[in-house]
Amino acid sequence: MAALLLVAHGSRRAASNNEVRHLTDKLREVASDRFEQIECAFLELAEPLIPDGITCCINQGADEVVVLPYFLSAGRHVSEDIPGIVAETQARYPNIPIRIAPYLGESSDIVHTLLELAIK
Amino acid sequence: MAALLLVAHGSRRAASNNEVRHLTDKLREVASDRFEQIECAFLELAEPLIPDGITCCINQGADEVVVLPYFLSAGRHVSEDIPGIVAETQARYPNIPIRIAPYLGESSDIVHTLLELAIK
Repeated sequence: MAALLLVAHGSRRAASNNEVRHLTDKLREVASDRFEQIECAFLELAEPLIPDGITCCINQGADEVVVLPYFLSAGRHVSEDIPGIVAETQARYPNIPIRIAPYLGESSDIVHTLLELAIK
Repeated sequence: MAALLLVAHGSRRAASNNEVRHLTDKLREVASDRFEQIECAFLELAEPLIPDGITCCINQGADEVVVLPYFLSAGRHVSEDIPGIVAETQARYPNIPIRIAPYLGESSDIVHTLLELAIK
């Protein structure tokens, strides 16, 4: 039973955090055949934080967790903060693989998505 | 002659700004038939800033500029800062339409892009 955890930065603005939760709902609609759980978590400023999000997935039965950074650039958050937090959490659950997927900005699809938005 | 201006937040980290410039190069590869100029600009912390990016497009012959916010959420930057800067710049060039496209996070494609990253 694999879980997908979408990880966003988190904002003081509730509407921005709710955009992430809404996106998580949409992911559930299209990906429930690939992941039995799909949740979101935040690096800071909103809840759940990443360790709590991972723990929640594992407590609900996940035997693998894929952490997907909802970030556009490979800054410190993507290159250091998220891997550090995941490594600490992994140490608490040595038998459950926790894998970090490529961050959103790394996807080659972005170019086409941007073009579609531009010509609408 | 339409110009596309990809607008990112800008970072103190040069590599993050260069990711945006690299993405702009990739946009040129796929969209040069739709836009005769494709440039990038930044809200802050990197150059060119948005007014300079728009002016550059117009000075090179653009008769229309599409500003495309490379942002994931509709926070203050997307809802207030960018429209404010664009309106000020529009006032300087009343005969050149400057249109703001939907921001990246608003695209329904994002769900599928995230899923592809998750299952790689």
